[in-house]
Amino acid sequence: MKLNTIAAAVLSLVLPLAWTGSQAAEPIEPIKAAKPKNPAMVELGKKLYFDPRLSMSGFISCNSCHNLSMGGTDNLQTSIGHNWQQGPINAPTVLNSTLNLAQFWDGRAKDLKAQAGGPIANPGEMAFTHELAVDVLNSIPAYRAEFKKVFGKDKASIDMVTDAIAAFEDTLVTPDSRFDKWLKGDKKALTKVEKEGYDLFKNSGCTACHYGPAMGGQSFQKMGLVAEYDTKNKAAGVAGLTGKDADRMKFKVPTLRNVEMTYPYFHDGAAWTLEEAVDVMGRLQLGRTYSKEEIAKIVAFLKTLTGKQPDFKLPILPPSTNDTPKPKPFG
Amino acid sequence: MKLNTIAAAVLSLVLPLAWTGSQAAEPIEPIKAAKPKNPAMVELGKKLYFDPRLSMSGFISCNSCHNLSMGGTDNLQTSIGHNWQQGPINAPTVLNSTLNLAQFWDGRAKDLKAQAGGPIANPGEMAFTHELAVDVLNSIPAYRAEFKKVFGKDKASIDMVTDAIAAFEDTLVTPDSRFDKWLKGDKKALTKVEKEGYDLFKNSGCTACHYGPAMGGQSFQKMGLVAEYDTKNKAAGVAGLTGKDADRMKFKVPTLRNVEMTYPYFHDGAAWTLEEAVDVMGRLQLGRTYSKEEIAKIVAFLKTLTGKQPDFKLPILPPSTNDTPKPKPFG
Repeated sequence: MKLNTIAAAVLSLVLPLAWTGSQAAEPIEPIKAAKPKNPAMVELGKKLYFDPRLSMSGFISCNSCHNLSMGGTDNLQTSIGHNWQQGPINAPTVLNSTLNLAQFWDGRAKDLKAQAGGPIANPGEMAFTHELAVDVLNSIPAYRAEFKKVFGKDKASIDMVTDAIAAFEDTLVTPDSRFDKWLKGDKKALTKVEKEGYDLFKNSGCTACHYGPAMGGQSFQKMGLVAEYDTKNKAAGVAGLTGKDADRMKFKVPTLRNVEMTYPYFHDGAAWTLEEAVDVMGRLQLGRTYSKEEIAKIVAFLKTLTGKQPDFKLPILPPSTNDTPKPKPFG
Repeated sequence: MKLNTIAAAVLSLVLPLAWTGSQAAEPIEPIKAAKPKNPAMVELGKKLYFDPRLSMSGFISCNSCHNLSMGGTDNLQTSIGHNWQQGPINAPTVLNSTLNLAQFWDGRAKDLKAQAGGPIANPGEMAFTHELAVDVLNSIPAYRAEFKKVFGKDKASIDMVTDAIAAFEDTLVTPDSRFDKWLKGDKKALTKVEKEGYDLFKNSGCTACHYGPAMGGQSFQKMGLVAEYDTKNKAAGVAGLTGKDADRMKFKVPTLRNVEMTYPYFHDGAAWTLEEAVDVMGRLQLGRTYSKEEIAKIVAFLKTLTGKQPDFKLPILPPSTNDTPKPKPFG
């Protein structure tokens, strides 16, 4: 073994320890790159994610409202569903959603698999049924062959469909943001102002909710903790599930990863700018009125949270056949 | 020079001649691969093609109705526009559209650049204005930088937007179908039945209209030449432009490339299967009733026309800024 090889071997032992050490002091961990266990299932899930034939109209896919060109969301206050229906709540980003403790704003789906079936059958979203969606897929030999390869069964089921979509969504993590580089020890990755923004973010209590690798998604919190949140949006939050008054306006804390891309903000999409969102959060959640300068610093920090976006080829979908049920866009 | 090198050199001289020779006998030429002159403009055009911020709602992009995952169309009889309006005519595929003599079913746009501006400002489609679309783009520094790089100007204009979209669309050709391999001399590329289908296609007169590399797109023809076409669709074809009765129901002949992917067929999208489309074409355009066996052969041939589909990474769009005009999805 040559000297520099030994040095490298020693460094490789020491560095992870040093890195873990420095990291332990921070309430936020870097996003880890995806390590797909089943690439064939991910590929199938990607196709399904982009396939509008999972909707009654043949026009709306998962990607319509969780657009992977646009931070995994639609950048609308509330989404457009079947027949141009207005959605009840802001579409949360799919990016890093695998890190959430549960899915949807009220956490009513325990994981991505449970979530994936929701919009397909929701009359206000894709307005289809699980049975019809599966019928469409089973009418297409190329899909059947892919389900066979991945699941070993001759016919697809909704269970396999949601498994595959969730497997694809598991890969939609966004590592390597500038902040993550900083967390990993590259102290030049943030500017002075951005670092001051992070210190302010941390020291004024934002990390009480926005912690963990996703900087959110780990707890439910009341929107309007110190002062009431004024909104026309009718969503009751977790109370909609539990019926408990204490759960009113309690929502899953959204991730702040890629937050520059996931406007507008809050469950009602009321805040279009990060400046407004930070101001509202300060006053309503922390009882603190940030100065303009402080807001600018926090916003500068938040813009360092944009990670590596999904990096894959546009999937090509297998064509329908003579036996495929027809889309019904106009009733 | 070694003997086999000399042989290769001789072959490289002889083969193209032989190939041109064999090709001259066919009314259809292979699709040529794209050779983009300005890759930076193509990249910009790709982003614009996928950007729903060119619509009033912020929800509809070029790719919504000319979906590159689905043969460059939406696989609907007529498209869904702003506020779920029903389009008047079937969305033609964007694939190989650069080979068309003009754009739209009635040819009212002379080229792809002229076409690209249409849907943006059409109240039934993207329902925006060129001015607002350009304002959106100019509010986004990353877009401005890209326009600057490509066009050397500090601000985007609708002219640059449509230039870039057209440059991207120019690349959406689909070479290397099995039929093209056969045309280029690989006689094993087609099965016996497919070859019989091609002979029937050629000998019964389909190539009178479906000729050239795109197998269509080179002329306007009356839909219902021998017998009247029965449809509820109100489109008048070229007569809508010229006012001439002789141009009623005259439409641009659609390409047959990738026809397995571009269902439903005809300007009204009335035929969902290739079998039905071939039957109707035979009776109404050629005055010939094909037998079931003949239809099956022609359909087998038509399915060899699926070429290499667009092969690129999903574009990531630069985020809007505090100055970007907001989408107005719900009026």
